[in-house]
Amino acid sequence: MEKTKIILDCDPGHDDAVAILLAARDPGIELLGVTVVAGNQTLENTQRNARKVLQWCNCDVPVYAGCPGPLVREKIIAADIHGSTGLDGPVFPELTKPLENEHAVMFMIRTLLESQGDITVVTTGPMTNLAMAIRLEPRIIEKIRRIVLMGGSYTNGNVTPAAEFNIIADAEAAHICFGCGRPIVMVGLDVTRKALCYPEIVERMGKIGNRASDLFVALMGHFCRTQKEVFGWEGGPLHDPVTIAYLIDPSVLTLKPMNVQIDLRSTISYGRTNCDAFGYLQLPPTAEVAVDIDVQRFWDIVETGLRRYSEDDT
Amino acid sequence: MEKTKIILDCDPGHDDAVAILLAARDPGIELLGVTVVAGNQTLENTQRNARKVLQWCNCDVPVYAGCPGPLVREKIIAADIHGSTGLDGPVFPELTKPLENEHAVMFMIRTLLESQGDITVVTTGPMTNLAMAIRLEPRIIEKIRRIVLMGGSYTNGNVTPAAEFNIIADAEAAHICFGCGRPIVMVGLDVTRKALCYPEIVERMGKIGNRASDLFVALMGHFCRTQKEVFGWEGGPLHDPVTIAYLIDPSVLTLKPMNVQIDLRSTISYGRTNCDAFGYLQLPPTAEVAVDIDVQRFWDIVETGLRRYSEDDT
Amino acid sequence: MEKTKIILDCDPGHDDAVAILLAARDPGIELLGVTVVAGNQTLENTQRNARKVLQWCNCDVPVYAGCPGPLVREKIIAADIHGSTGLDGPVFPELTKPLENEHAVMFMIRTLLESQGDITVVTTGPMTNLAMAIRLEPRIIEKIRRIVLMGGSYTNGNVTPAAEFNIIADAEAAHICFGCGRPIVMVGLDVTRKALCYPEIVERMGKIGNRASDLFVALMGHFCRTQKEVFGWEGGPLHDPVTIAYLIDPSVLTLKPMNVQIDLRSTISYGRTNCDAFGYLQLPPTAEVAVDIDVQRFWDIVETGLRRYSEDDT
Amino acid sequence: MEKTKIILDCDPGHDDAVAILLAARDPGIELLGVTVVAGNQTLENTQRNARKVLQWCNCDVPVYAGCPGPLVREKIIAADIHGSTGLDGPVFPELTKPLENEHAVMFMIRTLLESQGDITVVTTGPMTNLAMAIRLEPRIIEKIRRIVLMGGSYTNGNVTPAAEFNIIADAEAAHICFGCGRPIVMVGLDVTRKALCYPEIVERMGKIGNRASDLFVALMGHFCRTQKEVFGWEGGPLHDPVTIAYLIDPSVLTLKPMNVQIDLRSTISYGRTNCDAFGYLQLPPTAEVAVDIDVQRFWDIVETGLRRYSEDDT
Repeated sequence: MEKTKIILDCDPGHDDAVAILLAARDPGIELLGVTVVAGNQTLENTQRNARKVLQWCNCDVPVYAGCPGPLVREKIIAADIHGSTGLDGPVFPELTKPLENEHAVMFMIRTLLESQGDITVVTTGPMTNLAMAIRLEPRIIEKIRRIVLMGGSYTNGNVTPAAEFNIIADAEAAHICFGCGRPIVMVGLDVTRKALCYPEIVERMGKIGNRASDLFVALMGHFCRTQKEVFGWEGGPLHDPVTIAYLIDPSVLTLKPMNVQIDLRSTISYGRTNCDAFGYLQLPPTAEVAVDIDVQRFWDIVETGLRRYSEDDT
Repeated sequence: MEKTKIILDCDPGHDDAVAILLAARDPGIELLGVTVVAGNQTLENTQRNARKVLQWCNCDVPVYAGCPGPLVREKIIAADIHGSTGLDGPVFPELTKPLENEHAVMFMIRTLLESQGDITVVTTGPMTNLAMAIRLEPRIIEKIRRIVLMGGSYTNGNVTPAAEFNIIADAEAAHICFGCGRPIVMVGLDVTRKALCYPEIVERMGKIGNRASDLFVALMGHFCRTQKEVFGWEGGPLHDPVTIAYLIDPSVLTLKPMNVQIDLRSTISYGRTNCDAFGYLQLPPTAEVAVDIDVQRFWDIVETGLRRYSEDDT
Repeated sequence: MEKTKIILDCDPGHDDAVAILLAARDPGIELLGVTVVAGNQTLENTQRNARKVLQWCNCDVPVYAGCPGPLVREKIIAADIHGSTGLDGPVFPELTKPLENEHAVMFMIRTLLESQGDITVVTTGPMTNLAMAIRLEPRIIEKIRRIVLMGGSYTNGNVTPAAEFNIIADAEAAHICFGCGRPIVMVGLDVTRKALCYPEIVERMGKIGNRASDLFVALMGHFCRTQKEVFGWEGGPLHDPVTIAYLIDPSVLTLKPMNVQIDLRSTISYGRTNCDAFGYLQLPPTAEVAVDIDVQRFWDIVETGLRRYSEDDT
Repeated sequence: MEKTKIILDCDPGHDDAVAILLAARDPGIELLGVTVVAGNQTLENTQRNARKVLQWCNCDVPVYAGCPGPLVREKIIAADIHGSTGLDGPVFPELTKPLENEHAVMFMIRTLLESQGDITVVTTGPMTNLAMAIRLEPRIIEKIRRIVLMGGSYTNGNVTPAAEFNIIADAEAAHICFGCGRPIVMVGLDVTRKALCYPEIVERMGKIGNRASDLFVALMGHFCRTQKEVFGWEGGPLHDPVTIAYLIDPSVLTLKPMNVQIDLRSTISYGRTNCDAFGYLQLPPTAEVAVDIDVQRFWDIVETGLRRYSEDDT
């Protein structure tokens, strides 16, 4: 089987960290590089977090820092959920894994231009880096195999009633990416809200007993606590890993083609992904939007992914 | 039991017609007047339709014509669903019921000012008339007991991915009404989409065999056909009567208080009712938003309501 | 010569007061009624001010109170310029002139419907009343001879860099009026900013020595002081009377037909009258926009107007 | 005297070409590089035009191609004014001057980071390149001595009633640049509309009789013809060279500090530079806005600039 080549563009973030865990070791995925953007925390924090997680995984994939803020609007972060480091909870050893000198946007442009058009770009944070790459060097567009993103919602948001975090954090970037013309899979809140990580999930993964599951437990323990404190919920949605789970086993998601337009003009609806689920606008579909998730399968994929790290301990 | 005094402001429309059928004869409701607005069809058509239905019901409640178009934006109608008359399907006898000379907005102002503050305003069309009344004579506001409206959605729209028909048809009017400070019950697509009138419902009501059920069958027969033609669906949502069913038996709906803001600024999200279901904005609730419906109970209420007309035939 | 029949819709306001002075006594103008709106001050104040000025003038034209706030947006007033009463400065005798019971919007509708289509509506405040009348009863539109308004600017505003007070105070109302299809003369800041009332003008008018000039001196004395305090200017623009001066002698203004669109969507440009002076949009003109004023002629018209009151003293 | 180091970012364009002519040979200016953006024509055309003009000038300053379109919105060009090449009119010899391989945005970032903070960025086209550089590498911001741009207007636009070409072509880029916090001189339509190049100016410059004046005559002959055809005017505004004239002799412009905000939300006012000339918003100034131009001095500067090329012919 040919491996799926991906660039993982993220803003770790607890759920991004799990996405990295899954992507770094899956036999069907070739992780070309991890590019980082400001989002859940500042770029300084998110790039360090990406390196910490990859070092923990003994993974030598290079990490590139990208844009420290959104294209047009003011920067927002999600410190209430992810803490002051963006990855509060686990205790990591001293960070030795280096940050690459190349800018994430330059790495994207170079790697895509040199490719055979077989690279999937996975974004689990604000889409600033990919949007910048597209605008700086539009010739990369035809080289993108497809974009798989965690972001948006065809119903309600999670920052405002209209908008989801990754999109509202840089709606102009999302607009650019959604408009590039390449295949897009949008994994939004409509499905990730069902990927709820309750304490019993943490317990289940904890039983695996390897370095990956240890990290998962440390991450999700903290995550569940902040969900409880901020929203009063027992568990929280594990948004970002759904993208990687989908690449590993597409049957985990049900997709529906929809025309998607990002709101850039509104004040109160800024950042809403208007997904025309019923075809009211009679416009051609622009993305495959995830409308359902096989939750049991999702957790099986996560467990299998974490188990792959057991070989390190033998 | 004291009757619930209501003014029913509507734009019939097939589902408005059923709402009138229920409201006109319910022993717990005192229908003070039917005010009409442009919406599903032009004002000329909707006021005629309101009179046709009330005449059919042998109901002497007066009908007042209101605004022929929205406050600010261009008029839209829904001829694809409701036909060229706005009430295609049934064959009505010659129209003899008169239209009142008084403007619907004047009737609202006069009736509310003279009241003891015990009138509920039910709107099942664009909210233009009530908004105009509020702006012309703000002293009516404290006289409104509450507003129960069919309109909006806290997830998706039905005209655009963002907006529902009654709201997008006059979003400024909705903004004025939602901002008036009185209690509001918003019955949106989130519940009315579950009040699906399938052929078996038509058959069930048809067995009642009185003039009201005959009208229901003629209306819904046509309605189901257009739903099939336009959307490919076997049945269609019976939006408007849910408001009256709620007044008859509040337990039919589950309500949740939410802060609701109407989008007036956007292009693609214009008319969206941004309902803060999870309290992200940390603003005080401004409406009780229907989040679930007991569908079986709803149809029982409709059947009971139609059966009340059997006494006319004895 | 046939008289020009007008309804003067205003929000006095110092400059509105001078407009009333001119309109009430000009032999070429038949003032059918003064309708009042919230604007420079609250409706309670502006309607009292209109009555005070007309009582001072011994003018028995009826005064009608209209809308206490704008159609859609939040109310703003201009207390910094016009003081806590909206007409600070003069000392008026006890107010005996009554306020009519009829709502200003009803008066407009009734008067226009009964007319021969020969009435000019002059607005020197937010256009709320006229817009409400148009939306409540669109049949008045064809009865409007033309609209002459003080408002807007084809260059800069005076509340924001984009918007002038009368328009930003109710941009939706202005949008409705500009879109009604009847002839419109827009007298904006571009010309009224040249109608600067310096102390020497106050002195010149003071020499007339009648009750009208006394009022002018008391009004403008206060007005010049607030201009000095707020902006550091020696004199201030006498906006509103330019509309009446134009009706008395059209040669006082140079007009140019332009397509005019009011910004309702923007945040920072809300209320801007986008006037296509150079025809960039290639859309048909919708208003005659004043582009220049003969300032000397303007003051001569004002002086002549004030002198008409000398007959009262003989 | 120390030379003013500049990067000239442009989209030639007839008036850009004259700006290049002036900047390339002025003894007080050190032209570090010419960066090119899409604007008056496509990037393919504008970068060729920049090279043609510099080759004509015997100037070895490097030319870098930048972004082929705006950050967020759809690309617009001005082919009606500048023709199908963007520089219709002159006949140029075969193009031998190369295009640099480095991306204009990378050149900007590298050059600014390596500098002593003494470089002025002059933009005479859409501000896309500088905005991209700022967002990719915010550390350049403190290295920018100042930004001098041709763009915007504090009164009216020239593409819409609200917006000027360079700003509306990429309002988001302008927003980013105006918000960067460095000193900005905005040379807008308010002054460049007075720099009208009439046939007598063409004649005056033609008498110089060197290669630069020959090019000026060929460019402006075509430019005057299109102004006549499109607008019916005898001459047209020579927008872009005013920026360079200002660097050569600041006394040519009168500047006034203003708070400037770019409209990104509106539909009809999108791209307006809302300049708070009178301080209504009580916000701190963000740019020095040109409010007047000494037209005679401007043409003297242009003539002096063109005459500098006479030494080539000796």
